[in-house]
Amino acid sequence: LPDSRDATAGAAAPFDTARLDALMAEAGLDVLVATSKHNVQYLLGGYKFQFFSVMDAIGTSRYLPVFVYFRGDAGRSAYVANAMESWERELGRFWLKDVVPAAWGTADSVELAVDRIRASGLPAARIGVEMPFLPADALRQLEAAFGRSAIGDAVVVLERLRAVKTPAELALVREASERVVEAMLAVFRAARPGITKRQLVEALRREETDRGLTFEYCLLTVNTGLNRAASDEGWKKGGVASLDSGGNYHGYIGDLCRMAILGAAPDQELVDLLAEIEAIQQAARKPIRPGALGREIIEAGEAERRRQPNGKAMAFVAHGIGLVSHEAPRLTASGPVPYPADDAGRPLAEGMVVSIETTLPHPTRGFIKLEDTVAVTATGCIGYGDGGRGWTVAG
Amino acid sequence: LPDSRDATAGAAAPFDTARLDALMAEAGLDVLVATSKHNVQYLLGGYKFQFFSVMDAIGTSRYLPVFVYFRGDAGRSAYVANAMESWERELGRFWLKDVVPAAWGTADSVELAVDRIRASGLPAARIGVEMPFLPADALRQLEAAFGRSAIGDAVVVLERLRAVKTPAELALVREASERVVEAMLAVFRAARPGITKRQLVEALRREETDRGLTFEYCLLTVNTGLNRAASDEGWKKGGVASLDSGGNYHGYIGDLCRMAILGAAPDQELVDLLAEIEAIQQAARKPIRPGALGREIIEAGEAERRRQPNGKAMAFVAHGIGLVSHEAPRLTASGPVPYPADDAGRPLAEGMVVSIETTLPHPTRGFIKLEDTVAVTATGCIGYGDGGRGWTVAG
Repeated sequence: LPDSRDATAGAAAPFDTARLDALMAEAGLDVLVATSKHNVQYLLGGYKFQFFSVMDAIGTSRYLPVFVYFRGDAGRSAYVANAMESWERELGRFWLKDVVPAAWGTADSVELAVDRIRASGLPAARIGVEMPFLPADALRQLEAAFGRSAIGDAVVVLERLRAVKTPAELALVREASERVVEAMLAVFRAARPGITKRQLVEALRREETDRGLTFEYCLLTVNTGLNRAASDEGWKKGGVASLDSGGNYHGYIGDLCRMAILGAAPDQELVDLLAEIEAIQQAARKPIRPGALGREIIEAGEAERRRQPNGKAMAFVAHGIGLVSHEAPRLTASGPVPYPADDAGRPLAEGMVVSIETTLPHPTRGFIKLEDTVAVTATGCIGYGDGGRGWTVAG
Repeated sequence: LPDSRDATAGAAAPFDTARLDALMAEAGLDVLVATSKHNVQYLLGGYKFQFFSVMDAIGTSRYLPVFVYFRGDAGRSAYVANAMESWERELGRFWLKDVVPAAWGTADSVELAVDRIRASGLPAARIGVEMPFLPADALRQLEAAFGRSAIGDAVVVLERLRAVKTPAELALVREASERVVEAMLAVFRAARPGITKRQLVEALRREETDRGLTFEYCLLTVNTGLNRAASDEGWKKGGVASLDSGGNYHGYIGDLCRMAILGAAPDQELVDLLAEIEAIQQAARKPIRPGALGREIIEAGEAERRRQPNGKAMAFVAHGIGLVSHEAPRLTASGPVPYPADDAGRPLAEGMVVSIETTLPHPTRGFIKLEDTVAVTATGCIGYGDGGRGWTVAG
């Protein structure tokens, strides 16, 4: 192996290695090969190589960071990086000793990872990968080295490892949420009649960027429309708008939805409609505390939805959020993102973060929605970015 | 198959289908299954779904757009999209009829693509995929449906398809390049002694965003340092800085490097060093015209490098650029990105775009570099974003 040990590194792992070991044992995995940007960031304690933070492709291959973890032996962990990450190593960014900034594509990245697994003396190891984030050519390389049956999936192992956030992570989710809401309110303030959906998205992108966020997306409606894509449609005076945007702060996603009317106060019907949604959003927060089952959030929200006059037309969902926009605790099976609601029957824990959404695509008044971010505290819960949850008068 | 035909679509394909057919025939491919964001954007004529333009992960899987193309039958093309892309279809964004906004992860995306390949009556087809951009679980699904030996690689086919840019694409590369340079000059203007490398990167990110670009990365040096990563090092009065940044405009990358000195004019040695680099950069442009071989660029640049007093310490490279930061024409085998220089022996064509870089990591004066973007015209070449190529006095 090339001598890549960094004499300045060797600190303790920045994640719960005992928990990772237990999750890997439960899944029958000896070695973990993480290749998604979000999980590599997590395992590196927050580090992400900026050069490839937006794109992946370069030449006829792609950037492929590889974090190799050996169950029960965190000190043996290796990070295979792009050659340009040598500058980051020089600056002491890494907790682990074996950092190898030497690769330019999938083939050389995986080869360096294979070398390390072979050198570990675990030739018959069962290797957990992230199937959706391992490139096909990398899979074939691992299969050629270790056999097809040696490869297992570690997506859920890593998701569970990340489910309880540290105070430092919670601070990032809070910042992300608050800054997204501040950016939305700034966009509402500056809006003038005729501003198009496309211009609103671009304004939000800039407001989020100016607040240190990486803008990810904005779904939006104006007037009575239910189509949430950007377009040249203009926002009219007196019209309703919904802004639903995700922006990340150092990788942690703030994802919220806020409502406004342009240059006018809401009429009583609009006030009532948002109050129905608000009642559901608050009802869903009520059961949140350590030890409550995930499904209690869904049950409380659904029960309140059924009580509302417009409840039948509404959709209520809740899902964990963090480095991934829908992650553990996974609570809703019937929502728009149909991943198994594996965590509905599991207890919530302090440090989990849940996004709660109630949506009403109203046939005559437009698209009305609130989406909030709520963290589980020692005794209950706290909302992050709870500003602007009523009707904002824009313009 | 679900009825997803869009009655409003059905225009001509926005790319050269005859060329794609020929490239596929040469590679022995009957069907193309494109899954990278850049190639899907290309095949859709510029469309990219904003929601997942930064991230991929959602739930326990990921966004996987799939474009299916049948050789010789462009009208049969299909686009398997995320369910939320139904709003985009409603707005008439697609040239092709068979748009299926129904998926939430790899498994359902690939299943819908497999259905279409099966329905085509080409059960023994050879299927070209993008191995570095096809997820491992998607590969296994395709292998299960069509057999392992049916899967071939289409990365180079798609790269060659994209190599000659249309006038509309060239306009985007030009805008990207000019805006990146304008953003750099704005950062230089606003810089004050003590501004850190990290602050310079953040300032550039905002300046690029304000100019409609998506910021991708910034490698930079200040003073006499050669480390190009962001850090808390401050830029001193009289110190040299290099800003090398990529930002994309509707996906097309501007990637340039410019030099400045903070609050002082350059001394004669610095003037001379940048003049050496400039001589190489200009020499490399000279042979560029349709029909010239790719290697003529390298030969001209290398010959001029050898003539320069500091040439031995310099690195000279040239590479195509567009939707991917290093793409066809691939010209340099020995540069920092070691992909085969397959295009060195092929003729340049009008509409190709080449990035040309000369780098001098000077032992006492710091990191000095120019990177330019040059398009092949009918009679020669033209530089995009050629502003600020001398020493900019910053502050």
